[in-house]
Amino acid sequence: MNISIILAAGEGTRMKSKLSKVLHKVCGKPILEYVIKASRGAGTEKNVVVVGHGGDMVKEYFKDDPIVFKDQPIGEDVPYGTGFALMQAVDHIEDNSTVIILYGDTPLITELTINKLINYHKENEFQATVLTAILDNPTGYGRIIREDAGDILKIVEEKDALDEEKKVKEINSGIYCFNGKLLKDALSKIDNNNAQNEYYATDVIGILKKEGYRVGAYVIEDSIEIHGVNSRVQLAFTEEIMRKRINEYHMVNGVTIINPENTYIEDGVQIGRDTVIYPGVSLEGNTEIGEDCIIRNNSRIINSIIHNEVSIESSTIEDSIVGENTHIGPHAHLRPNSNIGKNVKIGNFVEVKNSTLKDNTKASHLSYIGDADVGYNVNIGCGVVFVNYNGREKFRTTVGDNAFIGSNANLVAPVNVEPWGFVAAGSTITKEVPEGALSIARAEQKNIDGWIEKKGYKK
Amino acid sequence: MNISIILAAGEGTRMKSKLSKVLHKVCGKPILEYVIKASRGAGTEKNVVVVGHGGDMVKEYFKDDPIVFKDQPIGEDVPYGTGFALMQAVDHIEDNSTVIILYGDTPLITELTINKLINYHKENEFQATVLTAILDNPTGYGRIIREDAGDILKIVEEKDALDEEKKVKEINSGIYCFNGKLLKDALSKIDNNNAQNEYYATDVIGILKKEGYRVGAYVIEDSIEIHGVNSRVQLAFTEEIMRKRINEYHMVNGVTIINPENTYIEDGVQIGRDTVIYPGVSLEGNTEIGEDCIIRNNSRIINSIIHNEVSIESSTIEDSIVGENTHIGPHAHLRPNSNIGKNVKIGNFVEVKNSTLKDNTKASHLSYIGDADVGYNVNIGCGVVFVNYNGREKFRTTVGDNAFIGSNANLVAPVNVEPWGFVAAGSTITKEVPEGALSIARAEQKNIDGWIEKKGYKK
Amino acid sequence: MNISIILAAGEGTRMKSKLSKVLHKVCGKPILEYVIKASRGAGTEKNVVVVGHGGDMVKEYFKDDPIVFKDQPIGEDVPYGTGFALMQAVDHIEDNSTVIILYGDTPLITELTINKLINYHKENEFQATVLTAILDNPTGYGRIIREDAGDILKIVEEKDALDEEKKVKEINSGIYCFNGKLLKDALSKIDNNNAQNEYYATDVIGILKKEGYRVGAYVIEDSIEIHGVNSRVQLAFTEEIMRKRINEYHMVNGVTIINPENTYIEDGVQIGRDTVIYPGVSLEGNTEIGEDCIIRNNSRIINSIIHNEVSIESSTIEDSIVGENTHIGPHAHLRPNSNIGKNVKIGNFVEVKNSTLKDNTKASHLSYIGDADVGYNVNIGCGVVFVNYNGREKFRTTVGDNAFIGSNANLVAPVNVEPWGFVAAGSTITKEVPEGALSIARAEQKNIDGWIEKKGYKK
Repeated sequence: MNISIILAAGEGTRMKSKLSKVLHKVCGKPILEYVIKASRGAGTEKNVVVVGHGGDMVKEYFKDDPIVFKDQPIGEDVPYGTGFALMQAVDHIEDNSTVIILYGDTPLITELTINKLINYHKENEFQATVLTAILDNPTGYGRIIREDAGDILKIVEEKDALDEEKKVKEINSGIYCFNGKLLKDALSKIDNNNAQNEYYATDVIGILKKEGYRVGAYVIEDSIEIHGVNSRVQLAFTEEIMRKRINEYHMVNGVTIINPENTYIEDGVQIGRDTVIYPGVSLEGNTEIGEDCIIRNNSRIINSIIHNEVSIESSTIEDSIVGENTHIGPHAHLRPNSNIGKNVKIGNFVEVKNSTLKDNTKASHLSYIGDADVGYNVNIGCGVVFVNYNGREKFRTTVGDNAFIGSNANLVAPVNVEPWGFVAAGSTITKEVPEGALSIARAEQKNIDGWIEKKGYKK
Repeated sequence: MNISIILAAGEGTRMKSKLSKVLHKVCGKPILEYVIKASRGAGTEKNVVVVGHGGDMVKEYFKDDPIVFKDQPIGEDVPYGTGFALMQAVDHIEDNSTVIILYGDTPLITELTINKLINYHKENEFQATVLTAILDNPTGYGRIIREDAGDILKIVEEKDALDEEKKVKEINSGIYCFNGKLLKDALSKIDNNNAQNEYYATDVIGILKKEGYRVGAYVIEDSIEIHGVNSRVQLAFTEEIMRKRINEYHMVNGVTIINPENTYIEDGVQIGRDTVIYPGVSLEGNTEIGEDCIIRNNSRIINSIIHNEVSIESSTIEDSIVGENTHIGPHAHLRPNSNIGKNVKIGNFVEVKNSTLKDNTKASHLSYIGDADVGYNVNIGCGVVFVNYNGREKFRTTVGDNAFIGSNANLVAPVNVEPWGFVAAGSTITKEVPEGALSIARAEQKNIDGWIEKKGYKK
Repeated sequence: MNISIILAAGEGTRMKSKLSKVLHKVCGKPILEYVIKASRGAGTEKNVVVVGHGGDMVKEYFKDDPIVFKDQPIGEDVPYGTGFALMQAVDHIEDNSTVIILYGDTPLITELTINKLINYHKENEFQATVLTAILDNPTGYGRIIREDAGDILKIVEEKDALDEEKKVKEINSGIYCFNGKLLKDALSKIDNNNAQNEYYATDVIGILKKEGYRVGAYVIEDSIEIHGVNSRVQLAFTEEIMRKRINEYHMVNGVTIINPENTYIEDGVQIGRDTVIYPGVSLEGNTEIGEDCIIRNNSRIINSIIHNEVSIESSTIEDSIVGENTHIGPHAHLRPNSNIGKNVKIGNFVEVKNSTLKDNTKASHLSYIGDADVGYNVNIGCGVVFVNYNGREKFRTTVGDNAFIGSNANLVAPVNVEPWGFVAAGSTITKEVPEGALSIARAEQKNIDGWIEKKGYKK
């Protein structure tokens, strides 16, 4: 069994935040979520997350997730250190398991790397394997000192390193792969008799070496993966890398992204081939975009399904469905539960909410369609309001196929316009419009001649 | 006569697209178009484009362009290779011509470089000249081996290169300049007796050398120009470089661009001095922007003429004309064929379509002006709709100078508001409003006291 | 007394602009303003700005600022050069002062650097101190030749430099710190007997050295600070650096910025902790944003106060106040003097201008609220227009607490809706609506059966 222990108890003071550090988001998801996902992707069956500062927030956020949470005691007389954090998880380490140690604040670690680390560990029959990185500037990191055969001899912390050792560019990432039983045994032997009074996870390596076990080093291919988030500047940098990764994934799959540095796609969004995504677009949540779509500048689409050949222009779409070959925008807004058919036009400054519009229907300008069931081939004029609220309750409106709703008309719900019903411009409709009827509710036009002159408008 | 042969037959598998690779767009234009434009700019009088996969799409796109298209046969038993592609164009190579070989997927090549290559070729009386580049990492490219005098001795492919040759950083771009007759002769002599069974254009160089001709090497100044597009990641990179080039051109000409990495101007757009372009703006097609304009965030302007001192804010303008000192937006939309005068205000959430608005007219909010001729100094209130469609036909509306259209009024076309006509708020106008008349079409206000109490609204 | 002399007389030809170079803006403020601010921040009590080309524009822009302006004569027979520019300020140099020489076109210089330069100058008791920089490529700059003790021996211009001197990477930034009296004396001794007929500020250093004074060199930590603006390309680069600085300042303070390269915050804006700023947002002028706010994509906020927990989505807010926990947008517009209470909703395509809305009021869609005082808990329906203009004058509207304004209603100002007043949809209200009354102004609905058939709509 593969187990991951993810350390997520740090205070994250430099974030200057009320929020737990590992709940800060990168591309729309908490940074801890990426670590758990990568860990699971690499085949860990149990994930133990050690929380401390802000731990309740973390547990609350992931309350529906089968994570094993362990609290790291925090307080004046309580020890510190990664070693102490690991000790909290000791009950969940099974003897014959392989244990991966990860960090809640390094969301760039990938499933592929964890997989390679585990495989390297197992194939070479190490008792422990350290994930290492080669850095141009290793200052500040623990250096990896190797034996001739390539096994790790020891890890030397910066402050203890000799000049010769300081020149070593291979560093300890802090990510390890352990034989479960040996990790447990070693954890029971580390102490905090040092200047900082901390328990160090690194000491486990020293103990295993002293006991004659073999410790390997697996060098990560891209050291960016071990980049941690300790400040909002690092958070923004991490977001940039993650954004690049996600966008490259879609480009490789056949999606054109005009400016990947300014396109915001959350992990998990699906996009079909030959769709073009313009700058400033945000695709969020469980969104699926079809093939041959055009998503123009600054559209924001959340938890929605967009079918093929749809064109969306500078619009906001939330929790909705848009049918094939439909055009939305510019500056339109589909609020939750809008179900738009094929070949529909939703034009500028139109809002749709909790409504169904069937194929070939048009609402080209400045209208609000709320709580409505609108049929096929309906024409909704400009400035039309589906009046769904009377100050106390909301009601639905039905508009049949081929109906025509004139400009600036109000349809006061609950009301029904039958198929081929024709509502004259400027009418407020409160009663049913029968099939094929013209419905009109407006006063006669009167012209008062000479009024401008009389009122002195002309000078 | 200078001739260009542009190879554009590649399948472009890595694009994962239904579209021919060379039709994918960079800054709004197909990548092939840039190559043709650069070639013509450098004085080529005939442009032969060899197409293969997706060739019909390419021919269709450029059907009004005097390009000579040649089809490269594709299929199981058909040979491959750049040499084979060139052979397709052989009928169009005139004996006393200078022939430039280019690629449909390298849109960053410039007129200036092609010009320099041709001049270098002619001034030094070479029979063939290779465009070369100096790369820090030449791995994968054919290396240029020079004679002492500087002429090319040979081009060695990566796989055939000796260790010493691999160290050479000068590489073959694949772009050549040839004496027409010699190219034709050499093409008749190359074969595909090699591991890949391909005809290589490079072999032409070998043949010419063997026959004792002089082959020169012209080193490109900026090797980015030979960057090819083989994937959407490379497409995005190419777009970034092209965007930078276009934006620098405008900045050098006196236009302020706040963030050039996030400003999208198509090749050919004109912008006057001291105009300021804010981030997220797209300027597309045949757009001309005057001097001293302010184009604020995320405006999109297509095929439009914007005169001097115009301010546009987060708005979309298509195929329209905007007069001096007019203000548009934020969040306004001029649809095609809008002709807006001087000192006009088109405010938030206003749409104009196929209409003329004369100087000093105002439509400040939430209105739709469609199919209308609006005079000078007209005030169009909020929520006004020019009702141009009755479900079957569209009609025009005329509004004379100095007229006033009250809020939420409908002007039901065809209808005419004479100069100084005054339409009361909330009126639906279906008949002419005479000059200087007040026109009103609304019901009287009735107040029903105690209604809220009676209906139980208060609790 | 510390004095700064800021040279700002250059023509800036490469800007290709009618505007004085130092008035071009970076992050919303003229570049000269940054130099003055940094200078004052470092404790200069008098700031002398020497202007020339476009000087009147500069003086006009800063007319309310206690800057001492001096005109540098410009014309055919007038000398050139930084030395000549300094001479214009000579009357303002006090004998016992410390004088800092700065440039109006290097806005990236920081208060911290100027401070360090002055301290270094004073602590080491130099008579002059040059701000120097170490450049990888020093070509074109004057080289700093040091004595063994570290003092400056001389400054050698590129054109006069020996090969050995050209290798020196320490260059003269042109920024100096002087003993006031010695500067004055030296300025009286420099001449323009050189190839260019210019007076060089650098010659002051030569004179002081000849007279036996000590000249120090303070090396700047980040040479980007001496980057000058001579073209719009450099202007955009400077904006990029300044944007990065400002955004990092906010991130360090606890603000999340999703993409700092595409977020535009002017110097001086305040933002509370745990606020999240999405891409494309512009925060301008005297804007204050509270804690825990969400400012979504492309919102533009100018001179406004946004309280805590406000959410703003793709909206424009000018000179307004927004209360706690209020939601604005998407695509809303608060025009100047809008005062919005707590828990208010201003939804899509709503414009508010010069109005007060009290707590818990809602205007969810497509409305214009202008010149109004709206109470608590009011519901403003869709398409409502506060008709504030009759073509000649503007009037105010009052809406009492708990009122309900039906959709597409017009409130024709001056008018008063009393508390609990209920305006029916589609009504144009011109007279007071009494407390608790229903007010209705609309025609009866008539249905004309068979109309569609008769008119031949169906085919």
